[in-house]
Amino acid sequence: MSDSAIYDKTVRQLRLLSQALDSGKTAAVKRMLNTLSPGEIANVLESLPLTKRLVAWGLVDPEDDGEVLVHVADEVRLSLIRDMDREELLAAAESLDLDDLAGLLEDLPAALTEEVLKGMDREDRERLERVLSYPEDTAGRLMDPDVVTVRADVSVDVVLRYLRIRGELPEHTDYLYVVNRRGQYTGRLAVTQLITQKPERSVAELIDDSQPAIRAGTSMGEVAAEFENHRYVSAPVVDDENVLVGRITVDDVLDVVRDEAEHSVMSMAGLHEEDDMFAPIWAASRRRALWLGINLITAFLASWVIGNFEATLEKVVALAVLMPVVASMGGIAGTQTLTLIVRGLALGQVSWDNAKPLLWREIMISALNGALWSVVVAGVAQLWFGDLRLSLVIAAAIAINLVTAAFCGVMIPLTLKRFAIDPALAGGVVLTTATDCVGFLAFLGLASLVLR
Amino acid sequence: MSDSAIYDKTVRQLRLLSQALDSGKTAAVKRMLNTLSPGEIANVLESLPLTKRLVAWGLVDPEDDGEVLVHVADEVRLSLIRDMDREELLAAAESLDLDDLAGLLEDLPAALTEEVLKGMDREDRERLERVLSYPEDTAGRLMDPDVVTVRADVSVDVVLRYLRIRGELPEHTDYLYVVNRRGQYTGRLAVTQLITQKPERSVAELIDDSQPAIRAGTSMGEVAAEFENHRYVSAPVVDDENVLVGRITVDDVLDVVRDEAEHSVMSMAGLHEEDDMFAPIWAASRRRALWLGINLITAFLASWVIGNFEATLEKVVALAVLMPVVASMGGIAGTQTLTLIVRGLALGQVSWDNAKPLLWREIMISALNGALWSVVVAGVAQLWFGDLRLSLVIAAAIAINLVTAAFCGVMIPLTLKRFAIDPALAGGVVLTTATDCVGFLAFLGLASLVLR
Repeated sequence: MSDSAIYDKTVRQLRLLSQALDSGKTAAVKRMLNTLSPGEIANVLESLPLTKRLVAWGLVDPEDDGEVLVHVADEVRLSLIRDMDREELLAAAESLDLDDLAGLLEDLPAALTEEVLKGMDREDRERLERVLSYPEDTAGRLMDPDVVTVRADVSVDVVLRYLRIRGELPEHTDYLYVVNRRGQYTGRLAVTQLITQKPERSVAELIDDSQPAIRAGTSMGEVAAEFENHRYVSAPVVDDENVLVGRITVDDVLDVVRDEAEHSVMSMAGLHEEDDMFAPIWAASRRRALWLGINLITAFLASWVIGNFEATLEKVVALAVLMPVVASMGGIAGTQTLTLIVRGLALGQVSWDNAKPLLWREIMISALNGALWSVVVAGVAQLWFGDLRLSLVIAAAIAINLVTAAFCGVMIPLTLKRFAIDPALAGGVVLTTATDCVGFLAFLGLASLVLR
Repeated sequence: MSDSAIYDKTVRQLRLLSQALDSGKTAAVKRMLNTLSPGEIANVLESLPLTKRLVAWGLVDPEDDGEVLVHVADEVRLSLIRDMDREELLAAAESLDLDDLAGLLEDLPAALTEEVLKGMDREDRERLERVLSYPEDTAGRLMDPDVVTVRADVSVDVVLRYLRIRGELPEHTDYLYVVNRRGQYTGRLAVTQLITQKPERSVAELIDDSQPAIRAGTSMGEVAAEFENHRYVSAPVVDDENVLVGRITVDDVLDVVRDEAEHSVMSMAGLHEEDDMFAPIWAASRRRALWLGINLITAFLASWVIGNFEATLEKVVALAVLMPVVASMGGIAGTQTLTLIVRGLALGQVSWDNAKPLLWREIMISALNGALWSVVVAGVAQLWFGDLRLSLVIAAAIAINLVTAAFCGVMIPLTLKRFAIDPALAGGVVLTTATDCVGFLAFLGLASLVLR
């Protein structure tokens, strides 16, 4: 999919708003913000440097405050909350659905959370406390505790009367959930069935028990996989006793999938997906410094390998010129294999069970490429330095490093995963350390044997 | 989010199935496959090497064939289709909804497509042809053309009677769409409203016109952004004359978001998200060779830079030892900035409009880190080689390269995007070429001036 046409709308919105902010046209900014959805406002705020962001934030319709806070990245949310006073925060919290509110409360001062809870009616407070009782990143946190339930032993007519009395139903209600006397989930009933079926039929006859409920303790990643694999639009959530406690809709899952994917991309570069692009320079520098420091250690490791061959390098300076080629080819080939395996691990498609055929396949692919590129590199080296032994040495080193790269590209992420270390985060560092060191060792080691 | 607990279910399924396949327990494999959803079967098939995959594919319930084909990656789909005969393919195609069928038809032999179209009733054929008339990666291709419409001038009672006559409604129908005499979209009506409102009220009174329709030509990426920003569960799709032509549900959007995210991760390593992990070795080698070749050219460019300083390297061999440290620190810092900007571009949060503050910020962060790490590296170099001038040279080179890396990390993706080149694909190659060359040039160039 081409990225070029995507999100042009966001870019346009951002440009107009930026220009209006620059020229101080407060009324125009306000008007523009009012035409945007909370999600779009969140996007725009994330894209603005801190000063401009806070000016724009002050102009957002207070009614949207809560929803916007739900949409923005964690670090950006903190920057916005710091800018709000007690009353504004209370009003924002009160405008939210229970599931969204649960997510927001963590970022609010404890005193304020107390106050929000006190302001709610008992039923809502109990529901909210139930949501908050589940660990972060579980289905229990994702669910909306406000669900419409019916009993199996009543007729369609009774359900219809009940719904008419109840009035407004939660948005996007496509199914009612059927529970027994103890509140346990037994199946679901399509709202459309209520319309197309005869009023005297009983719910028990129409119940659809094909959708299993999701346990509240299920990890969000697994919830997302269930939704993707079964194409659910919504799913009931139950506690350990199978008692219905809430409902997850796929729009919440969309956020999970988006976050998960961003996590892979960002952590490969030692970054975090909830970071603010415009976080204070000092804080951002500190975070990045750590990543650079780790990589520095691995770079010095490679230097140490080279340092062992100072005598050889002194005699044949062409080795220093060609060294980066060997290391870089290994790094690139290894990263390709690593990326494939890390993705497979994230999707559950790669495990130790199918590691052997994968490893064999990656090594064969690398060996074929090693054969091809060692000839090409040797040819270039021969033309450049006219030293046949040097050309043969670099050919061998390239072939060795490419095969090593394939081996490491498969084994490193699998091993990291076994030790519960995020392969997306640590895999690249370990891999390039290996390909750099093996590359330099093979190249300079062979040279020290052959070129004397 | 920790990846470790995610998709354990998939891994378990895969293990059991693999073991059963290995021991030739056909009946057991068949039984296992029957308990899985088409999405889960697709996942398992993608995870199996080609031979095992085809054995398992032969054991999948033919009723699931169509849905499984829709779920698997493009290249895997081709491997499965090649294994099916005409009758099987026809049966698979006929089991699908129109929107899914549209996606599958592209991969079927043309003669078979003809046959599938001929086998359909006229209404369905016309709908399918309409879907196929839209370009790939647009809303028109994503939509389901089967929608329930009502007129604004009828009463709730009339709608209810119409729906009872119609019988079964499409799955997950939460809204009916209201159209005028010319079929143009004017708003929507919640199914729950039909139940909770008085039968004599007219649709016009209850119509909800808050959801704008999506144009059929809108890119899938923009469709995904709309769904995410507005938390849609479903949305109407219209043609250029605002005539209602279909409906997109968020479960289809989930696939788009997943694909988009995988595209970023995979293309950064020169891979494609629709590739088969177990594609034939020869084909996979050819594809990877291209990426290695491109990177080889850039590696030789770095070598050429080094080659200009052979005389200096001959005198001070410690330079060869420390060279990789300078290049690597630049590469890591640059990749961090690049990743941030590429993600921002993909989300529409970064553009030339906010490039200046971002560039300034990244350069400041890099300068701070440059100050820190140049001191550390100089210290290590001093301890190692005891040459103060060499230590000062490497400190300066590190600082220069880190600032260059920040500059390139912002400017390269923005420039690539302007020339409509995918920054996720090409950004990394161009960036490391720049940081390698500048790193070597700064380090060896300064050394040739200072160390003589």
